[in-house]
Amino acid sequence: MENERVRQEAEAAIQEGKAKREQSFGLRYVRFSDDYRELPRGTVLFEEALIPGYPQIGRIVVLRSGLAEQFHGSFWAEEKVNGFNVRIAKVGDRILAFSRGGFICPFTTDRVGDLLDLTVFEEAPDLVVCAEVAGPENPYHEGSPPFIPADVQLFTFDLMRHGSARFLNQEEKMKLIDRYRLPATTIFGQYNRQNIDELESIGLRLDREGKEGIVFKEVGSQKRAKYVVGQSNIQDINDAAINLMDVHSSFFMDRILRLALFLDEHELEPSRAIKEQLGGAFLDQLSSALEQYRGTHHVSHRFKCRFRSYENASYFIESLQRIRKQGVQTLQRRLEQEGEFWVLEFERVSTRMVGLLGHSLGGGVTYD
Amino acid sequence: MENERVRQEAEAAIQEGKAKREQSFGLRYVRFSDDYRELPRGTVLFEEALIPGYPQIGRIVVLRSGLAEQFHGSFWAEEKVNGFNVRIAKVGDRILAFSRGGFICPFTTDRVGDLLDLTVFEEAPDLVVCAEVAGPENPYHEGSPPFIPADVQLFTFDLMRHGSARFLNQEEKMKLIDRYRLPATTIFGQYNRQNIDELESIGLRLDREGKEGIVFKEVGSQKRAKYVVGQSNIQDINDAAINLMDVHSSFFMDRILRLALFLDEHELEPSRAIKEQLGGAFLDQLSSALEQYRGTHHVSHRFKCRFRSYENASYFIESLQRIRKQGVQTLQRRLEQEGEFWVLEFERVSTRMVGLLGHSLGGGVTYD
Repeated sequence: MENERVRQEAEAAIQEGKAKREQSFGLRYVRFSDDYRELPRGTVLFEEALIPGYPQIGRIVVLRSGLAEQFHGSFWAEEKVNGFNVRIAKVGDRILAFSRGGFICPFTTDRVGDLLDLTVFEEAPDLVVCAEVAGPENPYHEGSPPFIPADVQLFTFDLMRHGSARFLNQEEKMKLIDRYRLPATTIFGQYNRQNIDELESIGLRLDREGKEGIVFKEVGSQKRAKYVVGQSNIQDINDAAINLMDVHSSFFMDRILRLALFLDEHELEPSRAIKEQLGGAFLDQLSSALEQYRGTHHVSHRFKCRFRSYENASYFIESLQRIRKQGVQTLQRRLEQEGEFWVLEFERVSTRMVGLLGHSLGGGVTYD
Repeated sequence: MENERVRQEAEAAIQEGKAKREQSFGLRYVRFSDDYRELPRGTVLFEEALIPGYPQIGRIVVLRSGLAEQFHGSFWAEEKVNGFNVRIAKVGDRILAFSRGGFICPFTTDRVGDLLDLTVFEEAPDLVVCAEVAGPENPYHEGSPPFIPADVQLFTFDLMRHGSARFLNQEEKMKLIDRYRLPATTIFGQYNRQNIDELESIGLRLDREGKEGIVFKEVGSQKRAKYVVGQSNIQDINDAAINLMDVHSSFFMDRILRLALFLDEHELEPSRAIKEQLGGAFLDQLSSALEQYRGTHHVSHRFKCRFRSYENASYFIESLQRIRKQGVQTLQRRLEQEGEFWVLEFERVSTRMVGLLGHSLGGGVTYD
């Protein structure tokens, strides 16, 4: 897209309430808070660069019919990792990481040098690395993939270029991942309708291994679809259950339904073990929440993450404390230097859950 | 309330959209669709009678603190039966049963002579019998108490009189229940803060017996509170799971939370068995729904109920077919004379669930 046209579009989008002017990290930019014409939500426009948003990807819940229905030719299958989506790009002389919504992510931006080799941006300064950041020490998600032992890791799954909301094709992506030694998601290979059986086996294996799922990418097009395996739904419920009051209840119902469809497709009768896991994902977490409430009058999840710079850590925790959205409160517990890192620990308090438990345990009545 | 004042109130309520003129069973009446001043939602006003609505009752979710907080003196404890709430009253020369919302219930009105001895209305024509109708052959609820082997039964739990939205006191109620041999809910007795332990034992026994819960009624006041036991929450989930898309998802979350609080209060660790039951309530029902969908392209619950009159049965099924609310469709399957009854069988189809399964199994994509 030519620069002038983009600037006009940004102005129009701001007028229509689809984009906002933002200022952070000493930078001014326009952030598209909604899809706008060909620009996906999360697109960010700087004086010197347009970083395209990462488009929404449709979900298939039944592997075999979903693939048959959505893809007509060949498609690539890659592992889907349970973390948070970032785009990393060079803007002026800085390497920045953007959240899905187009905010500069202070955490990933701080740690970007640990997550990938930044020489990629010297040699290809207009590249946009689309990746998942995941691990037990991530500051956003309660859950983390079982195969990441500590801290966080980055998994590149797509590449784009400044100025265009299009993915590089798979071969080019693989070549650049290789050339720049970008850490990347596992690519299972190229498939078509004839070898869906293999994908079914991969799905069952990922399910056993506690992994999240698969992303499919049509050869020669921008078309994609995602698919999660059964266990991953239980894991999501487990991670979110103490936020029962903050998360929309359809979050849980969607996952139960996806689990039922996964079991059904793979001709797995709902076993005693899986029922127990599903029931336990709710009851064990709520039992912990009650225990926690009795001990501290709080219900919270404790996060720990590492920053390189004290300023970024402070800025991060302050911005969390500013946004008390959906009844969630953030309490800083620790910010201390440990070796070469600043270790930040904070609690995300579910104030609605605290309110509900207080009311219920205190003998209050509710009306249905 | 004097007649003239009530009529004025009804007119005002209609103007304010809180009441509606209705016509059914050849009768014209005003139905209060919302609480209006001292008249509860469900109040019905005929030329010759005002039948008060049954007020909403608050729920306590923790027995001990709930009782301590809500009741200051003594209170009665009675069994809560899982069925549907009706008020039965004589209007002119007819005995009518009203739903909670103030509609004439064709089913209960038809069967009223089987459910209680109607001489009560000859001797006390201004009595309003407030009761639960429950059983496997009820036309509204998927579930039914385990102790009712067939058809339906009536359980009186309160008495009111025409013209006044006040409950008769417990002694008078018990006397009249006795005098008119009204089938009634079990009255456990009178309690106070000092003997809550006994109520706890009753709660645990009801839980083991698959019963629903307890209603508490303060001595000397109109104050009431209800309480359900742990298993009853799982039963509700089990009964509603195939309507996952029609029932608001908070229905399920509320019950999971109540179950967790029940276990917590009774110092029951979430056991493997209870987790399995909770998970199974979702997964087994969804597995049946999928099986049913594959067989019939429908997901439905089959209801069977018995009427005395063919006209009432026809009127009932026609009114169900007219109201296709919340994506629920009613299909008549059978209406045949069997001995002294007209047996009606119908299916309540969850059209949203059918749509969702069709889309998912057909390989459609969804966007979160």
